[in-house]
Amino acid sequence: MLCTALVFFMHLGFSLLEIGLTRQKNTVNILFKNFFIICIGLVLYALIGFNLMYPTSFWRGIIPDYFFALFGLVSPSVAEGLDLTYNTGYTYWTDFLFQGMFAATAATIISGAVAERAKLGSFFAFSMLYVGLVYPLVGSWKWGGGFLDSWGFYDFAGSTLVHSVGGWAALVYITKLGARIGKFSSEGKPMAIPGHNLPFSATGVLILWLGWFGFNGGSVLSADPALTSLVLTTTSLSAAAGGLAAAGFVHLVYKNFDLTMFMNGILGGLVSITAGADLMSITDAIFVGAIGGVIVVLAVALLDRLKLDDPVGAVAVHLGTGIWGTLAVGLFGSAASLHQFFIQFIGIAIIAAFCIGFSWIALSLIAKFFGLRVNREEELNGLDQAEHGGMNAYADFRMNQH
Amino acid sequence: MLCTALVFFMHLGFSLLEIGLTRQKNTVNILFKNFFIICIGLVLYALIGFNLMYPTSFWRGIIPDYFFALFGLVSPSVAEGLDLTYNTGYTYWTDFLFQGMFAATAATIISGAVAERAKLGSFFAFSMLYVGLVYPLVGSWKWGGGFLDSWGFYDFAGSTLVHSVGGWAALVYITKLGARIGKFSSEGKPMAIPGHNLPFSATGVLILWLGWFGFNGGSVLSADPALTSLVLTTTSLSAAAGGLAAAGFVHLVYKNFDLTMFMNGILGGLVSITAGADLMSITDAIFVGAIGGVIVVLAVALLDRLKLDDPVGAVAVHLGTGIWGTLAVGLFGSAASLHQFFIQFIGIAIIAAFCIGFSWIALSLIAKFFGLRVNREEELNGLDQAEHGGMNAYADFRMNQH
Amino acid sequence: MLCTALVFFMHLGFSLLEIGLTRQKNTVNILFKNFFIICIGLVLYALIGFNLMYPTSFWRGIIPDYFFALFGLVSPSVAEGLDLTYNTGYTYWTDFLFQGMFAATAATIISGAVAERAKLGSFFAFSMLYVGLVYPLVGSWKWGGGFLDSWGFYDFAGSTLVHSVGGWAALVYITKLGARIGKFSSEGKPMAIPGHNLPFSATGVLILWLGWFGFNGGSVLSADPALTSLVLTTTSLSAAAGGLAAAGFVHLVYKNFDLTMFMNGILGGLVSITAGADLMSITDAIFVGAIGGVIVVLAVALLDRLKLDDPVGAVAVHLGTGIWGTLAVGLFGSAASLHQFFIQFIGIAIIAAFCIGFSWIALSLIAKFFGLRVNREEELNGLDQAEHGGMNAYADFRMNQH
Repeated sequence: MLCTALVFFMHLGFSLLEIGLTRQKNTVNILFKNFFIICIGLVLYALIGFNLMYPTSFWRGIIPDYFFALFGLVSPSVAEGLDLTYNTGYTYWTDFLFQGMFAATAATIISGAVAERAKLGSFFAFSMLYVGLVYPLVGSWKWGGGFLDSWGFYDFAGSTLVHSVGGWAALVYITKLGARIGKFSSEGKPMAIPGHNLPFSATGVLILWLGWFGFNGGSVLSADPALTSLVLTTTSLSAAAGGLAAAGFVHLVYKNFDLTMFMNGILGGLVSITAGADLMSITDAIFVGAIGGVIVVLAVALLDRLKLDDPVGAVAVHLGTGIWGTLAVGLFGSAASLHQFFIQFIGIAIIAAFCIGFSWIALSLIAKFFGLRVNREEELNGLDQAEHGGMNAYADFRMNQH
Repeated sequence: MLCTALVFFMHLGFSLLEIGLTRQKNTVNILFKNFFIICIGLVLYALIGFNLMYPTSFWRGIIPDYFFALFGLVSPSVAEGLDLTYNTGYTYWTDFLFQGMFAATAATIISGAVAERAKLGSFFAFSMLYVGLVYPLVGSWKWGGGFLDSWGFYDFAGSTLVHSVGGWAALVYITKLGARIGKFSSEGKPMAIPGHNLPFSATGVLILWLGWFGFNGGSVLSADPALTSLVLTTTSLSAAAGGLAAAGFVHLVYKNFDLTMFMNGILGGLVSITAGADLMSITDAIFVGAIGGVIVVLAVALLDRLKLDDPVGAVAVHLGTGIWGTLAVGLFGSAASLHQFFIQFIGIAIIAAFCIGFSWIALSLIAKFFGLRVNREEELNGLDQAEHGGMNAYADFRMNQH
Repeated sequence: MLCTALVFFMHLGFSLLEIGLTRQKNTVNILFKNFFIICIGLVLYALIGFNLMYPTSFWRGIIPDYFFALFGLVSPSVAEGLDLTYNTGYTYWTDFLFQGMFAATAATIISGAVAERAKLGSFFAFSMLYVGLVYPLVGSWKWGGGFLDSWGFYDFAGSTLVHSVGGWAALVYITKLGARIGKFSSEGKPMAIPGHNLPFSATGVLILWLGWFGFNGGSVLSADPALTSLVLTTTSLSAAAGGLAAAGFVHLVYKNFDLTMFMNGILGGLVSITAGADLMSITDAIFVGAIGGVIVVLAVALLDRLKLDDPVGAVAVHLGTGIWGTLAVGLFGSAASLHQFFIQFIGIAIIAAFCIGFSWIALSLIAKFFGLRVNREEELNGLDQAEHGGMNAYADFRMNQH
């Protein structure tokens, strides 16, 4: 239950990270979006997910049973909901809340990538579909005991099942959405659009690191104290190594102490270790994190070259190191083998195909009927003006216009 | 003990919420006020409350025993303070600290409502009286096993005993204090005075939500894991439903995605569920929270119509939904019955009469001898100028004057 | 493990406190510095400290055993790392992570004192040496069962072993570094250089208070629930008393409600109680904290008189009340005696001599080869400009130049 609280707190971390790395004129919009994701995620998960699972639900009579089976759902009776023997040491409710908090994370990842130009309603529509359908379906392939699980695919706490799933959608979304006005010069050169509040971003990163204690620690679901302590240690070391590697690599290349790369490197280290946090020694964890940190820097540069605009680096962090962390299970730690590496690769490829395909189709339909992007004037004035009645995030402060 | 830490952390949530929704020129004042409340609350609770309870205290010889009985206090010996059998699984100290953290919350609620024009010393005097006398006395009627408890009045974690108790005082205080200069036009039309840092407010709301895990979770005092998990689930769902309902209702009426109403709706959902968090099913929790969210919006509009000025919406959130949540125990969940509804209503009415009466008399006396409000010039210049030697919360930033 | 999370979170508290009390032009620099300390501290602790301790490490063959003995290190086998019997109820990994989080704290204390003019690389070099050598060596004298422990020196959670150790280095560092440009007028009068974001500082203080629950609570290493609850109570009361005493004392002298002194008083109360949190009654805790609060105010004034410049008051808080709290073990609480007081005094003196001596020599060498301070132009433009490629912490805000 403590871990659930920490995973909940990650939503504050994501929100602060995102507003800090974007412009002040879109701050209210980003906060609104994040509040919405948390709230609708929980309520939908309760109304649909929960009702789907429980036989007393009125959905039960309407929707055929094979639909439940599709999502790998079990159907305990309501009385079992308070049963401590539901699983080793926790109740159905604990599981429900932890999973509900988890699910919304995938939408939050997308949110960061599409910031500053996505239409609010269209984003809500897509993220509800994605969190409601893609996330649990893909999850059922592994955590629900589906075919990936039976093949031996390993993903401890979601490098692929949470982070890459969010990352693939983010990648497709920014491809269809296009870059923010001013992100690329007329010659196609990438231009820096600096974030407006780096202390918020730094706060967000440290809150996320704290939350990862709950995310990875809570995924040792039976709360085996010995294993939990190992997982928290590998998690922290990978984060630290990721940050140092990213900052060091940037310093070598650009002769500069780059704070945002340091922060993204830490997040990259956290995502990298998520697939195998319970399998790694501390030396493994440091290697996995450090390589993850370098991958973040390279992925950011690659996106720039592809003229894709991801204001907060969500694709680099969550997709780039999500893939890396999943592959790393086959290369480092106690499960490493060529066979395992191959299975990890296959799992990533299948999930990639499904997520990209779904996202492309769903976003094309939404684009056709509602549009994905605010208009030029709205973007230039900022989304707080356009969608929130001119609410100003910092009413007393004087601002530079840009 | 973890829950105590989370309840402590709520003070940060309240502080950030309050400074974010007010003007920057009063920021230092608000922070000072909140630090003072936390610190004096703990120390007074230790020096007076604690000494009152323990026979070795020198107060014991001076103050007659019926005074203790009045507050429903037990008197364990000092040695019992470290006794784990004091109650199921926690010591006297744990209880002391949790209660001490709780008590200061009532003062914090008042603090938000009177922000930007209340005189610091007068506010301190009133809140010390209120937290020292009214809060424990009212609490003893129910939690101390007093007459409300014997009637069957139900309030799990304080919709009435904490939130409404604070809310009634806030209502009386802002009535006597009057609106801030500029809040109502000369024709009596309410004017928006925008908060200066909405990311702080949003951070505050999410920290409060997290803290509620401790507030409601910790009120399952014996830490029954099964019941705690239910309580955390109903708490989160009510918060989510409150936020969505408030934002949705405002959107219907004003065609606008209103962030501050979203935030206050979440808080309203949290207060609403506090009285019956252990009695509700998840569907109940969603209904209770959603209605709470709508009540917040209506209560804000009502206060505007009454020309009462509550900068942070404390009365709407804590009193409005505090009443609603207490009544809801009679309407939703496993204790719902007409009889229960009637008892809840009676309990609310008695506590209302007492809190309003005490506040009115105490504030009238304080107004007479010290005044409640800073003078016009001090208010226009900001309280940081007037009461804190011109300390500037944001020395390097350029500000708009208003 | 929860306590480890809270101690980790203290790094956010330190960072926000420090950036809030300094100027915006150095914000990126401070954040970078703090991220670096956390990350390098953990990784070095793992690569060196950990490998030193474990027989499978390749260091083991290279470095002779007496080196391990010097640091008071035990050498369990690797298999013991997951053994719950390693100590009452926690594993080696828990211990490792908790200690690793602890160690970096000493560097963070120094960081605050030298802010706004120290050269980044030189600071990193010194703090790595200090955290890697001085901190564990001094710690081994007491916590490793060394000579101070055998003499009966008492330091529950590190008033001396963490806070004073950091504080002595900070004092030496600012002596050699000199004051910031503009801190003292040409006549030598101290001038206020106001911090740029007091809400950040206030947030930092409350996060630190929360973190101290983990710091002191976690130092009851076997997690004895009764003793832990006493420790959290004395910790909170000392913090509250420290804040009130500092604010009250300043109010008496300067007729002013001073927020920064309130905040530093709270921190002073926390440091004061750290040496004897498990020995004090609640009345003792209030006295110890209140005296600590007054000491902070006096120490700040003393540093001003000595023309030493400590932007965040780190020396006053961590050294001043670190000494006081250690002495207080001989004056208040269940261990108080003249004999104990004398031993505490001797312990403080020996550690002071060692820390001052080491810092003086190490900083003199670093000064000679690399320099300690950025040049005048870099300092005036701000370190964000000089060392971070002009990265702006608040790109959209208009700033006052100073």
